[in-house]
Amino acid sequence: MQPPIIILVRPQMGENIGAAARAMMNFGLKELRLVAPRDGWPNPKAHEMSAHAEHIIEQAKVFETLADALAECQVAFAASARRRDMEIRYYFPETAAQIFVQEDVVSAYVFGPENNGLANEDIALCNGVVTIPTHPDNKSLNIAQSVGVLAYTWFRASQGEQKPLEVGEGVELASQDSLQKLYDYLDGELNVRGFYKTENLRPKMQMNLRALLGRMVITKQEIQTLWGVIATLTRK
Amino acid sequence: MQPPIIILVRPQMGENIGAAARAMMNFGLKELRLVAPRDGWPNPKAHEMSAHAEHIIEQAKVFETLADALAECQVAFAASARRRDMEIRYYFPETAAQIFVQEDVVSAYVFGPENNGLANEDIALCNGVVTIPTHPDNKSLNIAQSVGVLAYTWFRASQGEQKPLEVGEGVELASQDSLQKLYDYLDGELNVRGFYKTENLRPKMQMNLRALLGRMVITKQEIQTLWGVIATLTRK
Repeated sequence: MQPPIIILVRPQMGENIGAAARAMMNFGLKELRLVAPRDGWPNPKAHEMSAHAEHIIEQAKVFETLADALAECQVAFAASARRRDMEIRYYFPETAAQIFVQEDVVSAYVFGPENNGLANEDIALCNGVVTIPTHPDNKSLNIAQSVGVLAYTWFRASQGEQKPLEVGEGVELASQDSLQKLYDYLDGELNVRGFYKTENLRPKMQMNLRALLGRMVITKQEIQTLWGVIATLTRK
Repeated sequence: MQPPIIILVRPQMGENIGAAARAMMNFGLKELRLVAPRDGWPNPKAHEMSAHAEHIIEQAKVFETLADALAECQVAFAASARRRDMEIRYYFPETAAQIFVQEDVVSAYVFGPENNGLANEDIALCNGVVTIPTHPDNKSLNIAQSVGVLAYTWFRASQGEQKPLEVGEGVELASQDSLQKLYDYLDGELNVRGFYKTENLRPKMQMNLRALLGRMVITKQEIQTLWGVIATLTRK
């Protein structure tokens, strides 16, 4: 699957370009394009902030116009929080990402300068606007944060449905019957020690205690640990 | 709905604290807690990077230990990319956010220092680990980016299902019949001008052109514009 290209139009601060590159790398994006960067290119501050993403900075291409930067792209979405007085489609980040993933084309996210964002003329060159939902009082996202959120949503979409998180080796959830055996043992020990004061209360107390154990979503190792805890507590 | 608290444990750079506060504000998070910040507190660099989120920085509370910072929290997830040699549940950002939203409790996301992340002892104080899926080669996210992604996923979950994006006033999608009328008019004009060279090809060409028009997901205003375009092109 081809990851989307990130295009920064007239970016101002090298630090933001570097931070954007770092976020790109975290989510498997590789290609950065710059349209008329304010402080020229290369920019040492971009290098500095890119952490381990220097190669993205070093391979970044510079263009004079957005049209040049978009030349061979097939689907491009402009990142913008503002509603424009123009006819354009607006997309949620997740929807835009799904479109990129589904089409598997040369795709791009386009970001404007830090002070004013993209001009309407820039947006007219794109296939739509992607808007990151924000709190209505604070819509102005840092540019590297915007790159991070869109790169994240693309990465999630590119993985398909909920690929399980890898956990440590040998970590395995316990089965319900092993939990039930543990509970039965505990219940027996509590019983002989007079935990259930009245027969009336017993069923409800048993049910609640069983539910409490079940709530933990417990591993095989933890079941062993709890056997040990109960055995130790009941040792004479 | 109570937004989650952000707890930064032994944060190192003031710039990152400020950038985290800015991201918090974008997504409606309000309360920042710091556990033993390396460079003391207040920190002018945090102020500087917080953009319009100075109030979050000014109201941030400082604690000596994570246990103190977590005192009245009811559910807390530790942000970590690493698998730990300990028994702990791992959650996707979206799952953790859903749990916070569903329970509507005093909740917190906990982040470790920039160099090493959270210690296992810190993680043992939390209800689980939240892991932001990343490219396997580049798991180390900037701390403010991590705060941004988790704050974003919480904000999305707190809004419930896909609340539609507000678009400009008066923007309304066209109905299928108004598109069909436009197409019929275009087809008629093409027909009298000999666009369909052979009767054989006509049905397929018509279908493809109709599909092309339909693909645009078009507004009422755009339908008007296209009527004008066709009329202009056919004017003698």
